[in-house]
Amino acid sequence: MEKKVISEAVIKRLPKYYRQLRLLSEQGQAKVSSHALAQMLGITASQVRQDFCNFGGFGQQGYGYDVEKLKGELGAILGLTKEYAMIIVGAGNIGRALAGYQGFGKYGFRVKALFDAAPASDRVGELPLYSMDRLESYLRAETIDMAVIATPKQVAQQVADRLTELGVTMIWNFAPIDLTVQPGVVIENISMSESLLVLSYRANENKD
Amino acid sequence: MEKKVISEAVIKRLPKYYRQLRLLSEQGQAKVSSHALAQMLGITASQVRQDFCNFGGFGQQGYGYDVEKLKGELGAILGLTKEYAMIIVGAGNIGRALAGYQGFGKYGFRVKALFDAAPASDRVGELPLYSMDRLESYLRAETIDMAVIATPKQVAQQVADRLTELGVTMIWNFAPIDLTVQPGVVIENISMSESLLVLSYRANENKD
Repeated sequence: MEKKVISEAVIKRLPKYYRQLRLLSEQGQAKVSSHALAQMLGITASQVRQDFCNFGGFGQQGYGYDVEKLKGELGAILGLTKEYAMIIVGAGNIGRALAGYQGFGKYGFRVKALFDAAPASDRVGELPLYSMDRLESYLRAETIDMAVIATPKQVAQQVADRLTELGVTMIWNFAPIDLTVQPGVVIENISMSESLLVLSYRANENKD
Repeated sequence: MEKKVISEAVIKRLPKYYRQLRLLSEQGQAKVSSHALAQMLGITASQVRQDFCNFGGFGQQGYGYDVEKLKGELGAILGLTKEYAMIIVGAGNIGRALAGYQGFGKYGFRVKALFDAAPASDRVGELPLYSMDRLESYLRAETIDMAVIATPKQVAQQVADRLTELGVTMIWNFAPIDLTVQPGVVIENISMSESLLVLSYRANENKD
Protein backbone atom coordinates (compact mmCIF):
# COMPACT_ATOMS: atom_id res chain seq x y z
CA MET A 1 0.00 0.00 0.00
CA GLU A 2 1.26 3.47 -0.83
CA LYS A 3 2.24 5.46 2.26
CA LYS A 4 -0.09 8.33 3.07
CA VAL A 5 0.57 10.92 5.72
CA ILE A 6 -2.28 10.64 8.20
CA SER A 7 -2.99 13.85 10.12
CA GLU A 8 -2.69 13.99 13.90
CA ALA A 9 -6.39 14.82 14.22
CA VAL A 10 -7.38 11.68 12.31
CA ILE A 11 -5.00 9.51 14.35
CA LYS A 12 -6.50 10.82 17.57
CA ARG A 13 -10.01 9.99 16.36
CA LEU A 14 -9.15 6.37 15.53
CA PRO A 15 -9.37 5.17 19.16
CA LYS A 16 -12.71 6.98 19.52
CA TYR A 17 -14.12 5.15 16.48
CA TYR A 18 -12.75 1.88 17.75
CA ARG A 19 -14.26 2.40 21.21
CA GLN A 20 -17.68 3.09 19.65
CA LEU A 21 -17.45 0.05 17.40
CA ARG A 22 -16.60 -2.15 20.39
CA LEU A 23 -19.67 -0.80 22.16
CA LEU A 24 -21.95 -1.37 19.15
CA SER A 25 -20.53 -4.86 18.78
CA GLU A 26 -21.24 -5.63 22.46
CA GLN A 27 -24.80 -4.38 21.92
CA GLY A 28 -25.16 -6.79 19.00
CA GLN A 29 -25.64 -4.12 16.34
CA ALA A 30 -24.78 -5.37 12.83
CA LYS A 31 -24.66 -2.15 10.81
CA VAL A 32 -23.86 1.48 11.51
CA SER A 33 -24.16 4.51 9.22
CA SER A 34 -21.57 7.27 8.96
CA HIS A 35 -24.30 9.61 10.27
CA ALA A 36 -24.80 7.54 13.43
CA LEU A 37 -21.04 7.20 14.01
CA ALA A 38 -20.61 10.93 13.44
CA GLN A 39 -23.25 11.71 16.03
CA MET A 40 -21.60 9.44 18.60
CA LEU A 41 -18.30 11.30 18.14
CA GLY A 42 -19.80 14.78 17.87
CA ILE A 43 -18.47 15.33 14.34
CA THR A 44 -20.06 15.39 10.85
CA ALA A 45 -20.80 12.37 8.67
CA SER A 46 -18.61 13.81 5.92
CA GLN A 47 -15.73 13.98 8.42
CA VAL A 48 -16.22 10.29 9.21
CA ARG A 49 -16.14 9.35 5.52
CA GLN A 50 -13.10 11.58 4.94
CA ASP A 51 -11.28 9.98 7.90
CA PHE A 52 -12.03 6.47 6.63
CA CYS A 53 -10.87 7.43 3.11
CA ASN A 54 -7.35 7.62 4.54
CA PHE A 55 -7.53 3.87 5.02
CA GLY A 56 -9.33 2.87 1.84
CA GLY A 57 -12.90 3.72 2.86
CA PHE A 58 -14.05 0.50 4.61
CA GLY A 59 -16.93 -0.35 2.27
CA GLN A 60 -20.02 1.31 0.89
CA GLN A 61 -21.37 4.21 2.86
CA GLY A 62 -24.84 3.94 1.25
CA TYR A 63 -25.52 0.68 3.04
CA GLY A 64 -23.79 1.60 6.27
CA TYR A 65 -20.70 -0.11 7.64
CA ASP A 66 -20.63 -3.67 8.88
CA VAL A 67 -19.88 -3.27 12.61
CA GLU A 68 -17.75 -6.42 13.08
CA LYS A 69 -15.80 -5.85 9.88
CA LEU A 70 -15.12 -2.18 10.62
CA LYS A 71 -14.13 -3.00 14.20
CA GLY A 72 -11.70 -5.62 12.87
CA GLU A 73 -10.21 -3.25 10.30
CA LEU A 74 -9.79 -0.39 12.78
CA GLY A 75 -8.35 -2.83 15.32
CA ALA A 76 -5.76 -3.98 12.77
CA ILE A 77 -4.82 -0.36 11.95
CA LEU A 78 -4.44 0.30 15.68
CA GLY A 79 -2.14 -2.71 16.01
CA LEU A 80 -4.56 -4.62 18.23
CA THR A 81 -4.23 -7.99 16.50
CA LYS A 82 -1.43 -9.07 18.82
CA GLU A 83 -0.41 -8.99 22.47
CA TYR A 84 2.00 -6.49 23.99
CA ALA A 85 4.16 -7.32 27.00
CA MET A 86 4.82 -4.27 29.13
CA ILE A 87 6.74 -3.25 32.21
CA ILE A 88 6.10 -0.28 34.48
CA VAL A 89 9.11 1.73 35.65
CA GLY A 90 8.32 3.64 38.83
CA ALA A 91 6.14 2.02 41.50
CA GLY A 92 4.73 5.19 43.06
CA ASN A 93 1.06 6.15 43.06
CA ILE A 94 0.66 6.23 39.30
CA GLY A 95 2.75 3.14 38.57
CA ARG A 96 0.82 1.12 41.14
CA ALA A 97 -2.53 2.40 39.88
CA LEU A 98 -1.68 1.36 36.32
CA ALA A 99 -0.50 -2.05 37.55
CA GLY A 100 -3.85 -2.55 39.28
CA TYR A 101 -5.97 -1.31 36.40
CA GLN A 102 -7.47 -4.15 34.38
CA GLY A 103 -8.81 -2.02 31.53
CA PHE A 104 -5.87 -2.30 29.14
CA GLY A 105 -5.93 -6.09 29.09
CA LYS A 106 -8.92 -6.06 26.71
CA TYR A 107 -6.71 -4.39 24.10
CA GLY A 108 -3.98 -6.99 24.54
CA PHE A 109 -1.63 -5.08 26.85
CA ARG A 110 -0.24 -7.23 29.68
CA VAL A 111 1.81 -5.87 32.54
CA LYS A 112 4.64 -8.32 33.33
CA ALA A 113 6.60 -6.55 36.07
CA LEU A 114 7.29 -3.27 37.84
CA PHE A 115 10.65 -1.67 38.55
CA ASP A 116 11.55 0.94 41.15
CA ALA A 117 14.75 2.62 42.35
CA ALA A 118 13.85 1.73 45.94
CA PRO A 119 11.24 -1.06 45.90
CA ALA A 120 9.22 -1.10 49.12
CA SER A 121 8.23 -4.76 48.65
CA ASP A 122 8.79 -7.54 46.12
CA ARG A 123 5.29 -7.57 44.64
CA VAL A 124 2.55 -5.14 43.61
CA GLY A 125 -0.59 -7.24 43.79
CA GLU A 126 0.18 -10.33 41.67
CA LEU A 127 3.06 -8.70 39.82
CA PRO A 128 6.77 -8.88 40.63
CA LEU A 129 8.44 -5.62 41.67
CA TYR A 130 12.19 -5.44 40.99
CA SER A 131 14.97 -3.01 41.76
CA MET A 132 16.16 -0.85 38.86
CA ASP A 133 19.52 -2.66 39.09
CA ARG A 134 17.81 -5.63 37.52
CA LEU A 135 16.39 -3.75 34.52
CA GLU A 136 19.19 -4.72 32.13
CA SER A 137 19.25 -8.41 33.01
CA TYR A 138 15.44 -8.61 32.94
CA LEU A 139 15.15 -6.97 29.52
CA ARG A 140 17.86 -9.24 28.10
CA ALA A 141 16.01 -12.32 29.34
CA GLU A 142 12.41 -11.32 28.53
CA THR A 143 10.68 -10.04 25.41
CA ILE A 144 9.15 -6.72 26.37
CA ASP A 145 7.45 -4.51 23.77
CA MET A 146 6.55 -1.53 25.82
CA ALA A 147 7.46 0.37 28.96
CA VAL A 148 5.46 2.78 31.06
CA ILE A 149 7.57 5.54 32.60
CA ALA A 150 6.02 6.60 35.89
CA THR A 151 9.14 7.93 37.57
CA PRO A 152 9.92 11.41 38.91
CA LYS A 153 10.68 13.81 36.05
CA GLN A 154 14.34 14.18 37.09
CA VAL A 155 15.20 10.60 36.08
CA ALA A 156 12.65 10.04 33.28
CA GLN A 157 15.00 10.82 30.36
CA GLN A 158 17.74 8.60 31.76
CA VAL A 159 15.22 5.76 32.22
CA ALA A 160 13.97 6.24 28.65
CA ASP A 161 17.57 6.02 27.37
CA ARG A 162 18.23 2.78 29.30
CA LEU A 163 14.99 1.23 28.05
CA THR A 164 15.54 2.08 24.41
CA GLU A 165 19.17 0.94 24.47
CA LEU A 166 17.83 -2.42 25.63
CA GLY A 167 15.43 -2.64 22.70
CA VAL A 168 12.13 -1.29 24.06
CA THR A 169 10.47 0.49 21.12
CA MET A 170 7.24 1.75 22.70
CA ILE A 171 7.20 4.18 25.62
CA TRP A 172 4.13 5.48 27.42
CA ASN A 173 5.33 8.41 29.47
CA PHE A 174 3.49 9.62 32.59
CA ALA A 175 6.40 11.71 33.91
CA PRO A 176 5.66 15.44 33.57
CA ILE A 177 8.44 16.16 31.09
CA ASP A 178 8.87 15.83 27.33
CA LEU A 179 11.30 13.04 26.51
CA THR A 180 13.58 12.65 23.51
CA VAL A 181 13.87 9.21 21.92
CA GLN A 182 15.89 7.87 19.02
CA PRO A 183 14.29 7.18 15.61
CA GLY A 184 12.36 3.91 15.56
CA VAL A 185 11.06 4.39 19.11
CA VAL A 186 7.49 5.65 19.54
CA ILE A 187 6.42 7.62 22.56
CA GLU A 188 3.11 8.94 23.87
CA ASN A 189 2.93 11.38 26.76
CA ILE A 190 0.07 11.61 29.22
CA SER A 191 0.52 14.96 30.86
CA MET A 192 -1.91 15.16 33.74
CA SER A 193 -0.67 18.53 34.95
CA GLU A 194 -1.08 20.04 31.47
CA SER A 195 -4.64 18.75 31.33
CA LEU A 196 -5.34 20.18 34.79
CA LEU A 197 -3.99 23.59 33.76
CA VAL A 198 -6.10 23.60 30.58
CA LEU A 199 -9.15 22.92 32.78
CA SER A 200 -8.15 25.76 35.07
CA TYR A 201 -7.64 28.06 32.06
CA ARG A 202 -11.10 27.26 30.72
CA ALA A 203 -12.73 27.82 34.10
CA ASN A 204 -11.27 31.32 34.15
CA GLU A 205 -11.24 32.42 30.51
CA ASN A 206 -14.65 34.05 30.54
CA LYS A 207 -14.23 35.73 33.89
CA ASP A 208 -11.89 38.64 33.01
CA MET B 1 -10.26 43.50 27.42
CA GLU B 2 -11.89 42.61 24.12
CA LYS B 3 -12.70 38.92 23.84
CA LYS B 4 -10.53 37.02 21.39
CA VAL B 5 -11.09 33.46 20.36
CA ILE B 6 -7.95 31.57 21.40
CA SER B 7 -7.26 28.45 19.35
CA GLU B 8 -7.13 25.02 20.96
CA ALA B 9 -3.49 24.60 19.94
CA VAL B 10 -2.51 27.82 21.73
CA ILE B 11 -4.48 26.85 24.86
CA LYS B 12 -2.71 23.49 24.97
CA ARG B 13 0.71 25.19 24.74
CA LEU B 14 0.02 27.55 27.68
CA PRO B 15 0.76 24.91 30.34
CA LYS B 16 3.96 23.99 28.52
CA TYR B 17 5.15 27.61 28.58
CA TYR B 18 4.18 27.90 32.21
CA ARG B 19 6.02 24.72 33.14
CA GLN B 20 9.20 26.00 31.41
CA LEU B 21 8.91 29.40 33.12
CA ARG B 22 8.59 27.70 36.51
CA LEU B 23 11.73 25.72 35.76
CA LEU B 24 13.69 28.80 34.63
CA SER B 25 12.52 30.65 37.72
CA GLU B 26 13.69 27.80 39.97
CA GLN B 27 17.05 27.94 38.21
CA GLY B 28 17.24 31.66 38.98
CA GLN B 29 17.21 32.81 35.36
CA ALA B 30 16.04 36.44 34.97
CA LYS B 31 15.45 36.73 31.22
CA VAL B 32 14.47 34.38 28.43
CA SER B 33 14.28 35.01 24.68
CA SER B 34 11.49 33.80 22.42
CA HIS B 35 14.16 31.74 20.63
CA ALA B 36 15.18 29.95 23.83
CA LEU B 37 11.55 29.33 24.84
CA ALA B 38 10.79 28.07 21.33
CA GLN B 39 13.65 25.60 21.50
CA MET B 40 12.48 24.27 24.86
CA LEU B 41 9.03 23.59 23.42
CA GLY B 42 10.22 22.33 20.04
CA ILE B 43 8.44 25.10 18.10
CA THR B 44 9.60 28.26 16.27
CA ALA B 45 10.31 31.64 17.87
CA SER B 46 7.73 33.25 15.62
CA GLN B 47 5.14 30.77 16.95
CA VAL B 48 5.99 31.81 20.51
CA ARG B 49 5.56 35.50 19.67
CA GLN B 50 2.32 34.76 17.81
CA ASP B 51 0.98 32.75 20.78
CA PHE B 52 1.82 35.57 23.21
CA CYS B 53 0.20 38.16 20.91
CA ASN B 54 -3.14 36.55 21.81
CA PHE B 55 -2.63 37.88 25.32
CA GLY B 56 -1.13 41.29 24.55
CA GLY B 57 2.46 40.23 23.82
CA PHE B 58 4.05 40.26 27.33
CA GLY B 59 6.69 42.94 26.68
CA GLN B 60 9.48 43.56 24.22
CA GLN B 61 10.83 40.56 22.39
CA GLY B 62 14.10 42.32 21.47
CA TYR B 63 15.24 42.33 25.09
CA GLY B 64 13.82 38.95 25.97
CA TYR B 65 11.02 38.31 28.46
CA ASP B 66 11.36 38.87 32.18
CA VAL B 67 11.01 35.32 33.58
CA GLU B 68 9.19 36.21 36.85
CA LYS B 69 6.82 38.64 35.12
CA LEU B 70 5.99 36.25 32.30
CA LYS B 71 5.47 33.38 34.76
CA GLY B 72 3.11 35.61 36.74
CA GLU B 73 1.15 36.69 33.68
CA LEU B 74 0.83 33.15 32.32
CA GLY B 75 -0.14 31.94 35.80
CA ALA B 76 -2.91 34.52 35.98
CA ILE B 77 -4.20 33.52 32.52
CA LEU B 78 -4.19 29.89 33.66
CA GLY B 79 -6.22 30.83 36.75
CA LEU B 80 -3.42 29.91 39.15
CA THR B 81 -3.70 32.97 41.38
CA LYS B 82 -6.13 31.24 43.73
CA GLU B 83 -6.72 27.90 45.43
CA TYR B 84 -9.10 25.23 44.21
CA ALA B 85 -10.82 22.80 46.54
CA MET B 86 -11.46 19.46 44.89
CA ILE B 87 -13.06 16.13 45.61
CA ILE B 88 -12.38 12.79 43.94
CA VAL B 89 -15.37 10.62 43.06
CA GLY B 90 -14.35 6.99 42.72
CA ALA B 91 -11.75 5.54 45.08
CA GLY B 92 -10.41 2.78 42.83
CA ASN B 93 -6.83 2.59 41.55
CA ILE B 94 -6.89 5.91 39.71
CA GLY B 95 -8.82 7.84 42.38
CA ARG B 96 -6.47 6.63 45.10
CA ALA B 97 -3.38 7.39 43.00
CA LEU B 98 -4.58 10.96 42.41
CA ALA B 99 -5.35 11.38 46.11
CA GLY B 100 -1.81 10.31 46.96
CA TYR B 101 -0.14 12.42 44.29
CA GLN B 102 1.30 15.64 45.71
CA GLY B 103 2.17 17.25 42.39
CA PHE B 104 -1.02 19.30 41.90
CA GLY B 105 -0.67 21.11 45.22
CA LYS B 106 1.99 23.39 43.77
CA TYR B 107 -0.61 24.77 41.36
CA GLY B 108 -3.08 25.39 44.19
CA PHE B 109 -5.27 22.31 43.81
CA ARG B 110 -6.16 20.71 47.15
CA VAL B 111 -7.96 17.39 47.49
CA LYS B 112 -10.49 17.64 50.35
CA ALA B 113 -12.23 14.26 50.26
CA LEU B 114 -12.95 11.13 48.24
CA PHE B 115 -16.31 9.51 47.56
CA ASP B 116 -17.08 5.94 46.54
CA ALA B 117 -20.22 3.89 45.97
CA ALA B 118 -18.85 1.19 48.28
CA PRO B 119 -16.07 2.69 50.41
CA ALA B 120 -13.68 0.01 51.67
CA SER B 121 -12.51 2.20 54.57
CA ASP B 122 -13.16 5.68 55.96
CA ARG B 123 -9.87 7.24 54.90
CA VAL B 124 -7.44 7.23 51.97
CA GLY B 125 -4.16 8.28 53.54
CA GLU B 126 -4.95 11.51 55.40
CA LEU B 127 -8.14 12.19 53.44
CA PRO B 128 -11.71 11.28 54.41
CA LEU B 129 -13.47 8.74 52.20
CA TYR B 130 -17.26 9.00 52.18
CA SER B 131 -20.11 6.99 50.72
CA MET B 132 -21.79 8.47 47.62
CA ASP B 133 -24.96 8.86 49.72
CA ARG B 134 -23.25 11.75 51.43
CA LEU B 135 -22.32 13.63 48.24
CA GLU B 136 -25.30 15.99 48.34
CA SER B 137 -24.99 16.93 52.02
CA TYR B 138 -21.22 17.34 51.71
CA LEU B 139 -21.45 19.63 48.68
CA ARG B 140 -24.13 21.74 50.36
CA ALA B 141 -21.94 22.21 53.42
CA GLU B 142 -18.52 22.71 51.75
CA THR B 143 -17.27 25.00 48.99
CA ILE B 144 -15.87 22.73 46.32
CA ASP B 145 -14.66 24.12 42.98
CA MET B 146 -13.75 20.99 41.17
CA ALA B 147 -14.42 17.27 41.03
CA VAL B 148 -12.37 14.45 39.60
CA ILE B 149 -14.48 11.66 38.12
CA ALA B 150 -12.62 8.37 38.48
CA THR B 151 -15.64 6.05 38.45
CA PRO B 152 -16.48 3.20 36.07
CA LYS B 153 -17.76 4.56 32.75
CA GLN B 154 -21.29 3.21 33.33
CA VAL B 155 -22.00 5.70 36.13
CA ALA B 156 -19.77 8.60 35.06
CA GLN B 157 -22.49 10.66 33.33
CA GLN B 158 -24.87 10.28 36.25
CA VAL B 159 -22.11 11.35 38.67
CA ALA B 160 -21.34 14.38 36.47
CA ASP B 161 -25.04 15.34 36.53
CA ARG B 162 -25.22 15.10 40.34
CA LEU B 163 -22.05 17.15 40.75
CA THR B 164 -23.09 19.95 38.41
CA GLU B 165 -26.59 20.16 39.88
CA LEU B 166 -24.88 20.78 43.21
CA GLY B 167 -22.83 23.64 41.80
CA VAL B 168 -19.51 22.04 40.83
CA THR B 169 -18.33 23.94 37.72
CA MET B 170 -15.03 22.18 36.95
CA ILE B 171 -14.83 18.49 36.11
CA TRP B 172 -11.68 16.51 35.42
CA ASN B 173 -12.82 13.26 33.89
CA PHE B 174 -10.74 10.07 34.02
CA ALA B 175 -13.63 7.73 33.12
CA PRO B 176 -13.19 6.34 29.59
CA ILE B 177 -16.32 8.00 28.16
CA ASP B 178 -17.14 11.46 26.79
CA LEU B 179 -19.45 13.30 29.19
CA THR B 180 -22.03 15.98 28.45
CA VAL B 181 -22.25 18.95 30.80
CA GLN B 182 -24.49 21.99 30.90
CA PRO B 183 -23.26 25.44 29.78
CA GLY B 184 -21.11 27.13 32.42
CA VAL B 185 -19.46 23.87 33.44
CA VAL B 186 -15.95 23.16 32.10
CA ILE B 187 -14.67 19.66 31.61
CA GLU B 188 -11.35 18.12 30.63
CA ASN B 189 -10.99 14.46 29.76
CA ILE B 190 -7.90 12.36 30.32
CA SER B 191 -8.38 9.34 28.15
CA MET B 192 -5.65 6.88 29.00
CA SER B 193 -6.98 4.16 26.71
CA GLU B 194 -7.08 6.55 23.75
CA SER B 195 -3.49 7.54 24.41
CA LEU B 196 -2.48 3.88 24.63
CA LEU B 197 -4.18 3.11 21.31
CA VAL B 198 -2.47 6.07 19.62
CA LEU B 199 0.86 4.66 20.86
CA SER B 200 -0.06 1.26 19.51
CA TYR B 201 -1.08 2.82 16.16
CA ARG B 202 2.25 4.63 15.85
CA ALA B 203 4.22 1.50 16.70
CA ASN B 204 2.52 -0.26 13.81
CA GLU B 205 1.99 2.44 11.18
CA ASN B 206 5.27 1.92 9.36
CA LYS B 207 5.14 -1.86 9.43
CA ASP B 208 2.50 -2.58 6.76
